[in-house]
Amino acid sequence: MLSKAQIKYIQSLQRNKYRHQYQQYLAEGAKIVPELIIAGAKITQLFALPEWIEANSALLKQHALAAEPITADELQQASALSSPNQVIALVDIPPIDTVPTPTGLSIALDAVRDPGNLGTIVRTADWFGIKRVYCSTDCVDIYNPKTVQSTMGSIVRVEVIYTDLEVLFKEHKQIPVFAADMNGASLYSTHLPSEGILLIGSESHGISPSLAPYTLPITIPRFGGAESLNAAMAAGIILGWWKGH
Amino acid sequence: MLSKAQIKYIQSLQRNKYRHQYQQYLAEGAKIVPELIIAGAKITQLFALPEWIEANSALLKQHALAAEPITADELQQASALSSPNQVIALVDIPPIDTVPTPTGLSIALDAVRDPGNLGTIVRTADWFGIKRVYCSTDCVDIYNPKTVQSTMGSIVRVEVIYTDLEVLFKEHKQIPVFAADMNGASLYSTHLPSEGILLIGSESHGISPSLAPYTLPITIPRFGGAESLNAAMAAGIILGWWKGH
Repeated sequence: MLSKAQIKYIQSLQRNKYRHQYQQYLAEGAKIVPELIIAGAKITQLFALPEWIEANSALLKQHALAAEPITADELQQASALSSPNQVIALVDIPPIDTVPTPTGLSIALDAVRDPGNLGTIVRTADWFGIKRVYCSTDCVDIYNPKTVQSTMGSIVRVEVIYTDLEVLFKEHKQIPVFAADMNGASLYSTHLPSEGILLIGSESHGISPSLAPYTLPITIPRFGGAESLNAAMAAGIILGWWKGH
Repeated sequence: MLSKAQIKYIQSLQRNKYRHQYQQYLAEGAKIVPELIIAGAKITQLFALPEWIEANSALLKQHALAAEPITADELQQASALSSPNQVIALVDIPPIDTVPTPTGLSIALDAVRDPGNLGTIVRTADWFGIKRVYCSTDCVDIYNPKTVQSTMGSIVRVEVIYTDLEVLFKEHKQIPVFAADMNGASLYSTHLPSEGILLIGSESHGISPSLAPYTLPITIPRFGGAESLNAAMAAGIILGWWKGH
Protein backbone atom coordinates (compact mmCIF):
# COMPACT_ATOMS: atom_id res chain seq x y z
CA MET A 1 0.00 0.00 0.00
CA LEU A 2 1.45 3.35 -1.08
CA SER A 3 0.34 6.57 0.59
CA LYS A 4 -0.14 9.77 -1.38
CA ALA A 5 2.92 11.21 0.33
CA GLN A 6 4.99 8.19 -0.71
CA ILE A 7 3.85 8.44 -4.33
CA LYS A 8 4.76 12.12 -4.29
CA TYR A 9 8.18 11.38 -2.82
CA ILE A 10 8.92 8.68 -5.42
CA GLN A 11 7.80 10.92 -8.27
CA SER A 12 9.96 13.75 -6.95
CA LEU A 13 13.07 11.56 -7.41
CA GLN A 14 12.52 11.75 -11.16
CA ARG A 15 13.92 15.27 -10.85
CA ASN A 16 17.57 16.13 -10.34
CA LYS A 17 16.75 18.82 -7.77
CA TYR A 18 14.97 16.44 -5.41
CA ARG A 19 17.47 13.63 -5.90
CA HIS A 20 20.15 15.97 -4.64
CA GLN A 21 17.99 17.32 -1.85
CA TYR A 22 17.16 13.84 -0.52
CA GLN A 23 20.41 12.16 -1.68
CA GLN A 24 18.40 9.29 -3.13
CA TYR A 25 17.67 7.94 -6.58
CA LEU A 26 15.13 5.69 -8.18
CA ALA A 27 15.73 2.34 -9.86
CA GLU A 28 12.86 0.64 -11.63
CA GLY A 29 12.22 -2.69 -13.22
CA ALA A 30 12.66 -6.42 -12.84
CA LYS A 31 16.03 -6.37 -14.63
CA ILE A 32 17.90 -3.54 -12.93
CA VAL A 33 16.67 -3.88 -9.31
CA PRO A 34 18.08 -7.41 -8.72
CA GLU A 35 21.34 -6.23 -10.36
CA LEU A 36 21.54 -3.39 -7.83
CA ILE A 37 20.75 -5.68 -4.91
CA ILE A 38 23.49 -8.10 -5.95
CA ALA A 39 25.95 -5.27 -6.54
CA GLY A 40 25.35 -4.02 -3.00
CA ALA A 41 23.54 -0.74 -3.62
CA LYS A 42 22.20 0.91 -0.45
CA ILE A 43 18.51 0.29 -0.99
CA THR A 44 16.32 1.95 1.65
CA GLN A 45 12.94 0.85 0.31
CA LEU A 46 11.51 -1.60 -2.19
CA PHE A 47 7.96 -1.44 -3.55
CA ALA A 48 6.90 -4.38 -5.68
CA LEU A 49 4.03 -6.42 -7.04
CA PRO A 50 3.35 -9.53 -4.90
CA GLU A 51 4.43 -11.82 -7.76
CA TRP A 52 7.84 -10.10 -7.94
CA ILE A 53 8.30 -10.47 -4.19
CA GLU A 54 7.47 -14.15 -4.36
CA ALA A 55 9.76 -14.81 -7.32
CA ASN A 56 12.63 -12.97 -5.58
CA SER A 57 12.16 -14.14 -2.01
CA ALA A 58 15.49 -15.98 -1.88
CA LEU A 59 17.36 -12.93 -3.15
CA LEU A 60 15.59 -10.67 -0.67
CA LYS A 61 16.31 -13.02 2.22
CA GLN A 62 19.97 -13.36 1.27
CA HIS A 63 20.39 -9.58 1.38
CA ALA A 64 18.09 -9.09 4.40
CA LEU A 65 15.73 -6.87 2.43
CA ALA A 66 11.96 -6.62 2.82
CA ALA A 67 9.82 -5.39 -0.06
CA GLU A 68 6.50 -3.66 0.44
CA PRO A 69 3.75 -5.18 -1.72
CA ILE A 70 1.89 -2.70 -3.93
CA THR A 71 -0.80 -3.03 -6.59
CA ALA A 72 -0.32 -2.58 -10.33
CA ASP A 73 -2.33 0.66 -10.02
CA GLU A 74 -0.04 2.05 -7.36
CA LEU A 75 3.02 1.07 -9.38
CA GLN A 76 1.60 2.90 -12.39
CA GLN A 77 1.01 6.04 -10.30
CA ALA A 78 4.50 6.15 -8.81
CA SER A 79 6.49 5.01 -11.84
CA ALA A 80 8.55 7.14 -14.21
CA LEU A 81 8.19 4.52 -16.96
CA SER A 82 5.41 4.38 -19.50
CA SER A 83 5.26 0.61 -18.96
CA PRO A 84 6.10 0.13 -15.27
CA ASN A 85 7.79 -3.12 -14.52
CA GLN A 86 7.06 -4.88 -11.22
CA VAL A 87 9.39 -3.14 -8.79
CA ILE A 88 10.69 0.26 -7.65
CA ALA A 89 13.75 0.70 -5.44
CA LEU A 90 14.80 3.81 -3.55
CA VAL A 91 18.57 3.93 -3.33
CA ASP A 92 20.96 6.12 -1.35
CA ILE A 93 23.39 8.22 -3.37
CA PRO A 94 26.86 7.39 -2.02
CA PRO A 95 28.56 10.51 -0.64
CA ILE A 96 31.69 11.84 -2.40
CA ASP A 97 33.51 14.28 -0.15
CA THR A 98 36.66 15.05 -2.08
CA VAL A 99 37.52 14.55 -5.73
CA PRO A 100 39.60 11.36 -5.80
CA THR A 101 42.95 11.32 -7.60
CA PRO A 102 42.80 9.46 -10.93
CA THR A 103 44.70 6.19 -10.73
CA GLY A 104 45.19 3.59 -13.44
CA LEU A 105 42.91 4.23 -16.39
CA SER A 106 40.04 6.72 -15.87
CA ILE A 107 37.42 8.37 -18.06
CA ALA A 108 36.47 12.04 -18.21
CA LEU A 109 33.30 13.24 -19.94
CA ASP A 110 32.87 16.79 -21.18
CA ALA A 111 29.21 17.88 -21.50
CA VAL A 112 27.82 14.46 -22.39
CA ARG A 113 24.08 15.14 -22.37
CA ASP A 114 22.43 11.92 -23.45
CA PRO A 115 21.33 9.72 -20.49
CA GLY A 116 21.74 6.53 -22.53
CA ASN A 117 25.26 7.48 -23.60
CA LEU A 118 26.37 8.16 -20.03
CA GLY A 119 24.84 4.90 -18.79
CA THR A 120 26.44 2.89 -21.60
CA ILE A 121 29.83 4.50 -20.94
CA VAL A 122 29.63 3.60 -17.23
CA ARG A 123 28.64 0.01 -18.09
CA THR A 124 31.46 -0.32 -20.62
CA ALA A 125 33.97 1.27 -18.20
CA ASP A 126 32.93 -1.31 -15.61
CA TRP A 127 33.50 -4.14 -18.12
CA PHE A 128 37.05 -2.91 -18.63
CA GLY A 129 37.68 -2.55 -14.90
CA ILE A 130 37.69 1.25 -14.82
CA LYS A 131 36.77 2.55 -11.39
CA ARG A 132 36.23 6.26 -11.98
CA VAL A 133 34.37 8.45 -14.45
CA TYR A 134 34.88 12.22 -14.02
CA CYS A 135 32.04 14.29 -15.45
CA SER A 136 31.99 18.02 -16.17
CA THR A 137 29.21 19.65 -14.18
CA ASP A 138 27.14 20.14 -17.36
CA CYS A 139 26.96 16.41 -18.10
CA VAL A 140 23.60 14.68 -17.65
CA ASP A 141 22.97 13.46 -14.08
CA ILE A 142 24.13 9.88 -13.47
CA TYR A 143 21.04 9.35 -11.29
CA ASN A 144 18.63 10.25 -14.10
CA PRO A 145 16.27 7.21 -14.26
CA LYS A 146 17.23 6.50 -17.90
CA THR A 147 20.92 6.59 -17.06
CA VAL A 148 20.46 4.31 -14.05
CA GLN A 149 18.63 1.88 -16.35
CA SER A 150 21.31 1.81 -19.02
CA THR A 151 24.19 1.27 -16.56
CA MET A 152 22.72 -2.20 -15.84
CA GLY A 153 24.02 -2.24 -12.27
CA SER A 154 27.47 -0.84 -13.05
CA ILE A 155 26.38 2.39 -11.35
CA VAL A 156 27.21 0.67 -8.04
CA ARG A 157 30.73 -0.37 -9.06
CA VAL A 158 31.93 2.74 -10.90
CA GLU A 159 32.42 6.02 -9.06
CA VAL A 160 31.01 8.96 -11.05
CA ILE A 161 32.38 12.31 -9.89
CA TYR A 162 31.08 15.70 -11.07
CA THR A 163 33.86 18.26 -11.08
CA ASP A 164 35.62 21.02 -13.01
CA LEU A 165 37.69 19.04 -15.52
CA GLU A 166 40.10 21.91 -16.14
CA VAL A 167 40.98 22.03 -12.44
CA LEU A 168 41.32 18.24 -12.38
CA PHE A 169 43.68 18.17 -15.38
CA LYS A 170 45.73 21.09 -13.99
CA GLU A 171 46.13 19.42 -10.59
CA HIS A 172 47.26 16.13 -12.13
CA LYS A 173 49.48 17.33 -14.96
CA GLN A 174 51.59 14.19 -14.75
CA ILE A 175 48.67 12.02 -15.92
CA PRO A 176 48.27 12.10 -19.71
CA VAL A 177 44.79 12.96 -21.03
CA PHE A 178 43.89 11.40 -24.39
CA ALA A 179 40.94 13.14 -26.04
CA ALA A 180 38.77 11.38 -28.62
CA ASP A 181 38.79 13.86 -31.49
CA MET A 182 38.18 13.86 -35.24
CA ASN A 183 41.60 15.39 -35.89
CA GLY A 184 44.04 13.54 -33.68
CA ALA A 185 46.79 11.01 -34.07
CA SER A 186 45.65 7.53 -35.12
CA LEU A 187 44.57 5.42 -32.16
CA TYR A 188 46.34 2.53 -33.84
CA SER A 189 49.75 4.17 -33.75
CA THR A 190 49.54 5.91 -30.36
CA HIS A 191 51.35 4.54 -27.33
CA LEU A 192 48.75 4.25 -24.56
CA PRO A 193 50.26 3.98 -21.07
CA SER A 194 48.64 1.96 -18.28
CA GLU A 195 47.88 5.15 -16.38
CA GLY A 196 45.89 7.85 -18.14
CA ILE A 197 42.57 9.57 -18.71
CA LEU A 198 40.35 9.10 -21.74
CA LEU A 199 38.38 12.30 -22.41
CA ILE A 200 35.16 12.08 -24.44
CA GLY A 201 33.52 15.30 -25.66
CA SER A 202 29.90 16.28 -26.04
CA GLU A 203 27.75 14.65 -28.73
CA SER A 204 27.37 17.89 -30.66
CA HIS A 205 30.37 20.09 -29.81
CA GLY A 206 33.27 17.76 -29.09
CA ILE A 207 35.93 18.79 -26.57
CA SER A 208 35.68 22.28 -25.00
CA PRO A 209 38.40 24.69 -26.19
CA SER A 210 39.36 25.34 -22.55
CA LEU A 211 40.28 21.66 -22.06
CA ALA A 212 42.09 21.15 -25.37
CA PRO A 213 45.49 22.47 -24.12
CA TYR A 214 45.66 19.67 -21.55
CA THR A 215 44.99 16.84 -23.99
CA LEU A 216 46.59 14.66 -26.65
CA PRO A 217 43.96 14.22 -29.37
CA ILE A 218 43.50 10.71 -30.76
CA THR A 219 41.26 9.53 -33.59
CA ILE A 220 39.67 6.19 -34.40
CA PRO A 221 40.71 5.77 -38.04
CA ARG A 222 37.78 5.97 -40.44
CA PHE A 223 37.59 3.58 -43.39
CA GLY A 224 34.08 4.34 -44.66
CA GLY A 225 31.47 7.03 -45.09
CA ALA A 226 29.93 7.67 -41.66
CA GLU A 227 30.50 11.24 -40.48
CA SER A 228 30.92 10.37 -36.84
CA LEU A 229 30.59 7.68 -34.20
CA ASN A 230 28.24 7.77 -31.23
CA ALA A 231 30.06 9.15 -28.13
CA ALA A 232 29.62 5.96 -26.09
CA MET A 233 30.75 3.84 -29.04
CA ALA A 234 33.90 5.92 -29.50
CA ALA A 235 34.69 5.50 -25.79
CA GLY A 236 34.20 1.72 -25.99
CA ILE A 237 36.30 1.26 -29.12
CA ILE A 238 39.20 3.24 -27.62
CA LEU A 239 38.97 1.39 -24.29
CA GLY A 240 38.89 -1.96 -26.09
CA TRP A 241 42.03 -1.06 -27.99
CA TRP A 242 43.76 0.45 -24.95
CA LYS A 243 43.16 -2.57 -22.70
CA GLY A 244 44.52 -4.96 -25.33
CA HIS A 245 47.97 -3.35 -25.41
CA MET B 1 -0.81 20.88 -48.11
CA LEU B 2 -1.25 17.24 -47.17
CA SER B 3 -4.39 15.36 -48.19
CA LYS B 4 -6.02 12.84 -45.87
CA ALA B 5 -4.88 10.07 -48.18
CA GLN B 6 -1.28 11.31 -48.03
CA ILE B 7 -1.34 11.46 -44.23
CA LYS B 8 -2.69 7.92 -44.17
CA TYR B 9 -0.01 6.73 -46.57
CA ILE B 10 2.80 8.33 -44.52
CA GLN B 11 1.44 6.89 -41.29
CA SER B 12 1.19 3.44 -42.86
CA LEU B 13 4.97 3.48 -43.45
CA GLN B 14 5.48 3.32 -39.69
CA ARG B 15 4.53 -0.34 -40.03
CA ASN B 16 6.76 -3.04 -41.44
CA LYS B 17 3.90 -4.60 -43.42
CA TYR B 18 3.19 -1.47 -45.45
CA ARG B 19 6.85 -0.58 -45.89
CA HIS B 20 7.30 -3.90 -47.62
CA GLN B 21 4.08 -3.58 -49.58
CA TYR B 22 5.02 -0.14 -50.95
CA GLN B 23 8.80 -0.68 -50.88
CA GLN B 24 9.24 2.69 -49.21
CA TYR B 25 10.38 3.94 -45.83
CA LEU B 26 10.09 7.09 -43.80
CA ALA B 27 12.89 9.39 -42.67
CA GLU B 28 12.08 12.26 -40.36
CA GLY B 29 13.88 15.23 -38.97
CA ALA B 30 16.20 18.08 -39.79
CA LYS B 31 19.30 16.01 -38.98
CA ILE B 32 18.71 12.75 -40.84
CA VAL B 33 16.96 14.02 -44.01
CA PRO B 34 19.86 16.18 -45.28
CA GLU B 35 22.20 13.25 -44.48
CA LEU B 36 20.08 10.99 -46.70
CA ILE B 37 19.93 13.56 -49.50
CA ILE B 38 23.73 13.94 -49.47
CA ALA B 39 24.23 10.17 -49.29
CA GLY B 40 22.09 9.75 -52.42
CA ALA B 41 19.00 8.03 -51.03
CA LYS B 42 16.17 7.66 -53.55
CA ILE B 43 13.77 10.20 -52.09
CA THR B 44 10.43 10.28 -53.89
CA GLN B 45 8.75 12.98 -51.81
CA LEU B 46 9.69 15.61 -49.25
CA PHE B 47 7.19 17.35 -46.98
CA ALA B 48 8.59 20.20 -44.92
CA LEU B 49 7.86 23.39 -43.04
CA PRO B 50 8.45 26.50 -45.21
CA GLU B 51 11.39 27.54 -42.96
CA TRP B 52 13.15 24.22 -43.54
CA ILE B 53 12.67 24.55 -47.29
CA GLU B 54 14.13 28.04 -47.25
CA ALA B 55 17.11 27.05 -45.09
CA ASN B 56 17.86 24.06 -47.34
CA SER B 57 17.16 25.57 -50.75
CA ALA B 58 20.77 25.23 -51.93
CA LEU B 59 20.88 21.56 -50.95
CA LEU B 60 17.53 20.89 -52.66
CA LYS B 61 18.64 22.66 -55.83
CA GLN B 62 21.95 20.80 -55.93
CA HIS B 63 20.13 17.47 -55.79
CA ALA B 64 17.23 18.59 -58.02
CA LEU B 65 14.67 17.94 -55.30
CA ALA B 66 11.48 19.89 -54.64
CA ALA B 67 9.90 19.85 -51.18
CA GLU B 68 6.20 20.33 -50.61
CA PRO B 69 5.48 22.96 -47.95
CA ILE B 70 3.24 21.77 -45.10
CA THR B 71 2.04 23.34 -41.87
CA ALA B 72 3.19 22.39 -38.36
CA ASP B 73 -0.26 20.88 -37.81
CA GLU B 74 0.01 18.67 -40.87
CA LEU B 75 3.51 17.60 -39.84
CA GLN B 76 2.19 16.65 -36.41
CA GLN B 77 -0.58 14.55 -37.96
CA ALA B 78 1.68 12.63 -40.31
CA SER B 79 4.69 12.21 -38.04
CA ALA B 80 5.77 9.11 -36.11
CA LEU B 81 7.72 11.26 -33.64
CA SER B 82 6.31 12.73 -30.46
CA SER B 83 8.16 15.97 -31.29
CA PRO B 84 8.05 16.17 -35.09
CA ASN B 85 10.99 17.96 -36.57
CA GLN B 86 10.48 20.10 -39.69
CA VAL B 87 10.69 17.53 -42.49
CA ILE B 88 9.51 14.10 -43.62
CA ALA B 89 11.04 12.20 -46.53
CA LEU B 90 9.60 9.19 -48.32
CA VAL B 91 12.44 7.00 -49.54
CA ASP B 92 12.52 4.01 -51.89
CA ILE B 93 13.82 0.76 -50.40
CA PRO B 94 16.63 -0.39 -52.71
CA PRO B 95 15.82 -3.79 -54.24
CA ILE B 96 18.01 -6.76 -53.28
CA ASP B 97 17.46 -9.61 -55.74
CA THR B 98 20.02 -12.14 -54.66
CA VAL B 99 21.97 -12.52 -51.46
CA PRO B 100 25.40 -11.07 -52.24
CA THR B 101 28.56 -13.06 -51.45
CA PRO B 102 30.38 -11.73 -48.37
CA THR B 103 33.63 -10.06 -49.37
CA GLY B 104 36.24 -8.45 -47.13
CA LEU B 105 34.89 -7.93 -43.65
CA SER B 106 31.11 -8.34 -43.13
CA ILE B 107 28.75 -8.42 -40.18
CA ALA B 108 25.98 -10.93 -39.44
CA LEU B 109 23.31 -10.30 -36.81
CA ASP B 110 21.31 -13.08 -35.19
CA ALA B 111 17.94 -11.96 -33.79
CA VAL B 112 19.03 -8.43 -32.86
CA ARG B 113 15.72 -6.87 -31.81
CA ASP B 114 16.51 -3.40 -30.60
CA PRO B 115 16.07 -0.74 -33.31
CA GLY B 116 18.74 1.50 -31.76
CA ASN B 117 21.26 -1.35 -31.61
CA LEU B 118 20.75 -2.22 -35.28
CA GLY B 119 21.04 1.42 -36.32
CA THR B 120 24.19 1.96 -34.26
CA ILE B 121 25.77 -1.21 -35.68
CA VAL B 122 25.09 -0.04 -39.25
CA ARG B 123 26.56 3.41 -38.47
CA THR B 124 29.65 1.87 -36.86
CA ALA B 125 30.04 -0.64 -39.71
CA ASP B 126 29.97 2.29 -42.13
CA TRP B 127 32.69 4.09 -40.13
CA PHE B 128 34.93 1.05 -40.51
CA GLY B 129 34.19 0.71 -44.23
CA ILE B 130 32.05 -2.42 -43.97
CA LYS B 131 29.66 -2.69 -46.89
CA ARG B 132 27.33 -5.51 -45.86
CA VAL B 133 25.33 -6.47 -42.79
CA TYR B 134 23.50 -9.83 -43.00
CA CYS B 135 20.50 -10.07 -40.67
CA SER B 136 18.59 -13.18 -39.64
CA THR B 137 14.95 -12.79 -40.64
CA ASP B 138 13.93 -12.30 -36.99
CA CYS B 139 16.08 -9.19 -36.57
CA VAL B 140 14.30 -5.84 -36.22
CA ASP B 141 13.51 -4.19 -39.58
CA ILE B 142 16.25 -1.84 -40.78
CA TYR B 143 13.52 0.51 -42.09
CA ASN B 144 11.91 0.89 -38.66
CA PRO B 145 11.80 4.70 -38.13
CA LYS B 146 13.95 4.47 -34.97
CA THR B 147 16.57 2.39 -36.77
CA VAL B 148 16.64 4.76 -39.74
CA GLN B 149 17.19 7.61 -37.26
CA SER B 150 20.06 5.95 -35.44
CA THR B 151 21.95 4.97 -38.62
CA MET B 152 22.55 8.70 -39.18
CA GLY B 153 22.60 8.32 -42.97
CA SER B 154 24.73 5.18 -43.04
CA ILE B 155 21.61 3.27 -44.12
CA VAL B 156 22.31 4.48 -47.65
CA ARG B 157 25.93 3.30 -47.72
CA VAL B 158 25.64 -0.10 -46.02
CA GLU B 159 23.69 -2.93 -47.63
CA VAL B 160 21.48 -4.71 -45.08
CA ILE B 161 20.36 -8.16 -46.27
CA TYR B 162 17.76 -10.33 -44.49
CA THR B 163 18.51 -13.97 -45.02
CA ASP B 164 18.87 -17.40 -43.41
CA LEU B 165 22.29 -17.15 -41.75
CA GLU B 166 22.74 -20.91 -41.56
CA VAL B 167 22.34 -21.19 -45.34
CA LEU B 168 24.71 -18.25 -45.82
CA PHE B 169 27.42 -19.77 -43.61
CA LYS B 170 27.00 -23.20 -45.24
CA GLU B 171 27.31 -21.76 -48.74
CA HIS B 172 30.45 -19.83 -47.88
CA LYS B 173 32.30 -22.27 -45.68
CA GLN B 174 35.66 -20.86 -46.72
CA ILE B 175 34.89 -17.55 -44.99
CA PRO B 176 35.59 -17.71 -41.23
CA VAL B 177 32.76 -16.58 -38.96
CA PHE B 178 33.84 -15.07 -35.62
CA ALA B 179 31.03 -15.01 -33.07
CA ALA B 180 31.02 -12.57 -30.16
CA ASP B 181 30.43 -14.84 -27.21
CA MET B 182 31.00 -14.82 -23.45
CA ASN B 183 32.98 -18.07 -23.65
CA GLY B 184 35.31 -17.72 -26.59
CA ALA B 185 39.01 -17.21 -27.20
CA SER B 186 40.33 -13.80 -26.17
CA LEU B 187 39.85 -11.20 -28.89
CA TYR B 188 43.32 -9.95 -28.04
CA SER B 189 45.04 -13.19 -28.91
CA THR B 190 42.97 -14.22 -31.94
CA HIS B 191 44.32 -13.85 -35.46
CA LEU B 192 41.68 -11.93 -37.41
CA PRO B 193 42.07 -12.24 -41.19
CA SER B 194 41.18 -9.44 -43.59
CA GLU B 195 38.25 -11.49 -44.92
CA GLY B 196 35.68 -12.74 -42.46
CA ILE B 197 32.28 -12.35 -40.88
CA LEU B 198 31.63 -10.96 -37.39
CA LEU B 199 28.49 -12.57 -35.93
CA ILE B 200 26.64 -10.76 -33.12
CA GLY B 201 23.90 -12.59 -31.22
CA SER B 202 20.63 -11.40 -29.77
CA GLU B 203 20.59 -9.08 -26.76
CA SER B 204 19.02 -11.72 -24.53
CA HIS B 205 19.89 -15.14 -25.98
CA GLY B 206 23.28 -14.75 -27.65
CA ILE B 207 24.09 -16.91 -30.71
CA SER B 208 21.50 -19.49 -31.84
CA PRO B 209 22.62 -23.10 -31.24
CA SER B 210 21.99 -23.87 -34.93
CA LEU B 211 24.63 -21.31 -35.96
CA ALA B 212 27.26 -22.18 -33.36
CA PRO B 213 28.84 -25.06 -35.35
CA TYR B 214 29.82 -22.64 -38.12
CA THR B 215 31.55 -20.15 -35.85
CA LEU B 216 34.74 -19.46 -33.92
CA PRO B 217 33.69 -17.87 -30.64
CA ILE B 218 35.68 -14.84 -29.47
CA THR B 219 35.36 -12.84 -26.25
CA ILE B 220 36.22 -9.28 -25.34
CA PRO B 221 38.26 -9.84 -22.17
CA ARG B 222 36.52 -8.56 -19.05
CA PHE B 223 38.54 -6.75 -16.39
CA GLY B 224 35.71 -5.53 -14.14
CA GLY B 225 32.27 -6.33 -12.79
CA ALA B 226 29.77 -5.68 -15.61
CA GLU B 227 27.89 -8.83 -16.58
CA SER B 228 27.69 -8.05 -20.26
CA LEU B 229 28.21 -5.42 -22.92
CA ASN B 230 25.51 -3.91 -25.09
CA ALA B 231 25.31 -5.78 -28.45
CA ALA B 232 26.19 -2.74 -30.56
CA MET B 233 29.06 -1.88 -28.23
CA ALA B 234 30.50 -5.39 -28.48
CA ALA B 235 30.33 -5.17 -32.28
CA GLY B 236 32.11 -1.79 -32.28
CA ILE B 237 34.89 -2.87 -29.90
CA ILE B 238 35.63 -5.99 -31.96
CA LEU B 239 35.57 -4.07 -35.24
CA GLY B 240 37.88 -1.41 -33.79
CA TRP B 241 40.35 -4.08 -32.75
CA TRP B 242 40.02 -6.01 -36.01
CA LYS B 243 40.63 -3.01 -38.25
CA GLY B 244 43.77 -2.03 -36.33
CA HIS B 245 45.56 -5.29 -37.06
